[in-house]
Amino acid sequence: MADTKALLTHIDDQLDVARERLFDWLRISSISAQPDHAGDCRRAAEWLKGELAGLGFAASVQETAGGHPVTLGHLPGPSGAPHLLFYGHYDVQPPDPLDLWTSPPFEPILADGPRGKRIVARGAVDDKGQTMLWLEAFRAYRALAGGLPVGVTVLVEGEEEIGSPRLPAFLDAHRKELQADVAVIADTGMWDIATPAITTRLRGSTYVEVKLRVAARDLHSGLFGGSAQNAANILAKALGQLHDEEGRIQVPGFYDSVKPLSRELLASWEALNFDEAAFLGRMGLRTPAGEKGRKALDRLWARPTADITGMWSGYTGAGAKTVIPAEASAKVSFRLVPGQDPSAVVEAFRRFILERLPSEGEASFNAMFKGKGLEIPSDSRWVRAASAALAAEYGRAPILMGSGASIPVVEMLKDTLGLDSLLVGFGLDDDQVHSPNEKFELTCFHRGQRAYVRLLAEIATSR
Amino acid sequence: MADTKALLTHIDDQLDVARERLFDWLRISSISAQPDHAGDCRRAAEWLKGELAGLGFAASVQETAGGHPVTLGHLPGPSGAPHLLFYGHYDVQPPDPLDLWTSPPFEPILADGPRGKRIVARGAVDDKGQTMLWLEAFRAYRALAGGLPVGVTVLVEGEEEIGSPRLPAFLDAHRKELQADVAVIADTGMWDIATPAITTRLRGSTYVEVKLRVAARDLHSGLFGGSAQNAANILAKALGQLHDEEGRIQVPGFYDSVKPLSRELLASWEALNFDEAAFLGRMGLRTPAGEKGRKALDRLWARPTADITGMWSGYTGAGAKTVIPAEASAKVSFRLVPGQDPSAVVEAFRRFILERLPSEGEASFNAMFKGKGLEIPSDSRWVRAASAALAAEYGRAPILMGSGASIPVVEMLKDTLGLDSLLVGFGLDDDQVHSPNEKFELTCFHRGQRAYVRLLAEIATSR
Repeated sequence: MADTKALLTHIDDQLDVARERLFDWLRISSISAQPDHAGDCRRAAEWLKGELAGLGFAASVQETAGGHPVTLGHLPGPSGAPHLLFYGHYDVQPPDPLDLWTSPPFEPILADGPRGKRIVARGAVDDKGQTMLWLEAFRAYRALAGGLPVGVTVLVEGEEEIGSPRLPAFLDAHRKELQADVAVIADTGMWDIATPAITTRLRGSTYVEVKLRVAARDLHSGLFGGSAQNAANILAKALGQLHDEEGRIQVPGFYDSVKPLSRELLASWEALNFDEAAFLGRMGLRTPAGEKGRKALDRLWARPTADITGMWSGYTGAGAKTVIPAEASAKVSFRLVPGQDPSAVVEAFRRFILERLPSEGEASFNAMFKGKGLEIPSDSRWVRAASAALAAEYGRAPILMGSGASIPVVEMLKDTLGLDSLLVGFGLDDDQVHSPNEKFELTCFHRGQRAYVRLLAEIATSR
Repeated sequence: MADTKALLTHIDDQLDVARERLFDWLRISSISAQPDHAGDCRRAAEWLKGELAGLGFAASVQETAGGHPVTLGHLPGPSGAPHLLFYGHYDVQPPDPLDLWTSPPFEPILADGPRGKRIVARGAVDDKGQTMLWLEAFRAYRALAGGLPVGVTVLVEGEEEIGSPRLPAFLDAHRKELQADVAVIADTGMWDIATPAITTRLRGSTYVEVKLRVAARDLHSGLFGGSAQNAANILAKALGQLHDEEGRIQVPGFYDSVKPLSRELLASWEALNFDEAAFLGRMGLRTPAGEKGRKALDRLWARPTADITGMWSGYTGAGAKTVIPAEASAKVSFRLVPGQDPSAVVEAFRRFILERLPSEGEASFNAMFKGKGLEIPSDSRWVRAASAALAAEYGRAPILMGSGASIPVVEMLKDTLGLDSLLVGFGLDDDQVHSPNEKFELTCFHRGQRAYVRLLAEIATSR
């Protein structure tokens, strides 16, 4: 077994090299949502295969059924050691709106920030940067010990940002070679830059695109106004009724199956003294949204939401065009919590919209994600080992926290392979994930690698 | 004085030539709203100047203050004859959405339709095609009589579709050379293809673009959902409250100054037996919009409206992007009736939106048109002459009707030059004005020219 101190020193010494390696990966614009970037997605998968092969993994790029490929790698550990499935994703969100980036999204830079250097690029933290944390930990072991203290399978997919539609079938088809004791995922956040966290609760998600059509064509707002139905008016009215004045979602039955939280859990979150005003203030916000009368972490981690993520209708160019739009569209993101069934939410939303259409109106719906909310056992061997590793690196115990975001793969790994997931991530709230100027603090990139070195050592010796 | 019958025969004989001439004009993509078409607007103005010069007019292209130019022409009539100011516009609406056109918008074609041939192009009827009606009538007089039976000034502008922002100043600066007894405008419609009409009532219009901003940037809908304000949610809610369930506009004070209609006028409209089901059915619609409990022509001609003409926010590309948008925008077209003050409506709408924002929300407003609703005296010498001409051409008296659309120039001509307007147009409800596949029935193009020949003769001999 390698000496942990030597491994950590190696990580420290190699930080610039590791960052340059990450930059190479970030330069590949692997946007899974946009078909014209399919080639870039494949390049990102191949790039990772090369890295794994260089570390001694049996590595391959595997096809999915008509989607972006998956990079797999296998490296056996010492006899009797636990076997871990490390999951990550190489795909990224579209960078729009481009004009709000201060540097090009696929030309990574090391910029100065209030807390030191930061890596700025699309994918800097979500999830290429975080995937590199454990990859660099592997590299340190490889360099100093010739191999890893545990058995490792790597699974890095390219469709996480579009809801991993082909992953369940892929997991099922590769069930045997993906066998492991636990899945490890670096795609979550810290409590703050000095306080590590393990995420034990995740919101689920469903994402519905709705397209209304009420007339055969756009109509002149003077000649037809007062008689013709207007798809934009109708959609605004329907979506405007999604929330009442208390912020409660009005889709019938939406809250019916929400599992209530224990008083203890709510109390432990309250003890964190989360500063919502500061959290919002960093984004230029002041007034909390969501359900009135509920605490911030309850709203963010344990209550379901409905957010319009996109909306378009009629003429959106320069100047004036006096049309009554025949069509109007929106994309709505629902965040779900344990107990809620994504398919039932989609169906209830569909009825909610249809009830608000005139009889000649048509609506089509495209539900893109269906991930349930999840709770992860917090007293397991894996969480205990991770807690020890994080406490050693940061000098304080990690927070067991929730996350408002979805990681549908956690549900898929449980459903298909029976695996629990250990979620240890190093993102921060202000990393601008999915937004312009996404960044990863260099210190998080650095200490995240060190934490994964320690995590491997702890797990190798854990019971 | 030329023989009317010979003039009409000349019109009949020259129909193909006249149509080809119109096609030349339609090929110029004079979209006033789009800065990159400024050169095309100028070309359209120059083209018309050439036509007028060919008819013996003293013609010129005159600059406006930083906008698209105006084509002017002057041709004196016989001594003592009335002097008419013919107004038209050479600019057209943007052709979007392009994919719904069955032929390119600026490549005019003669297509087969259920009522014979039709001219299909952007501007076919609004307003190049209608402007050509009186121009071809002038040409017939020029060919057979060497000149016109009345004095004529031609004023054809290039900013009608963007609200004629520079026309009042232009009219004021050219007040002297624009002196006339009445203005004549062909930019309205018939009652139906067999029944001519004179429009004596017009709705006004104002058009407001609103842009909301609530946060510094777009945010991840999982990490921030339940806490962060969403500009799209807020805009949908605000715009969704523009109308109540009865279709009444909820902007405070909106209806306060609406002048009530006389019982007689409403009764005369009711006698037209307007078939709203058929009117809507042609557009694929069935359920009337607008205020419940009011008759269709009241809603279309005499009641104010609010229609969202464009709306956009967040991610509108392919697939899913799970953002909470920081910004959301909409364009809203208000149609106004006599008594309403456009500036007051804009201000009331501004307050309506601002009241629905969280305290950190910002909204900018850009009001693009401000035209009042108008009533035109229907017992004048000009309306009587036009009635006689239309009755002779169509074998039935014209309908004195209202229009839901705005022609702001009518108000400007009245305010600036003191001129009443005579509105005699040959469009039909299904001409797809401002929409893909705009068309002008060939028979309307033909008989419209004949009607204008008769109109000139009637006016020359009227008292």
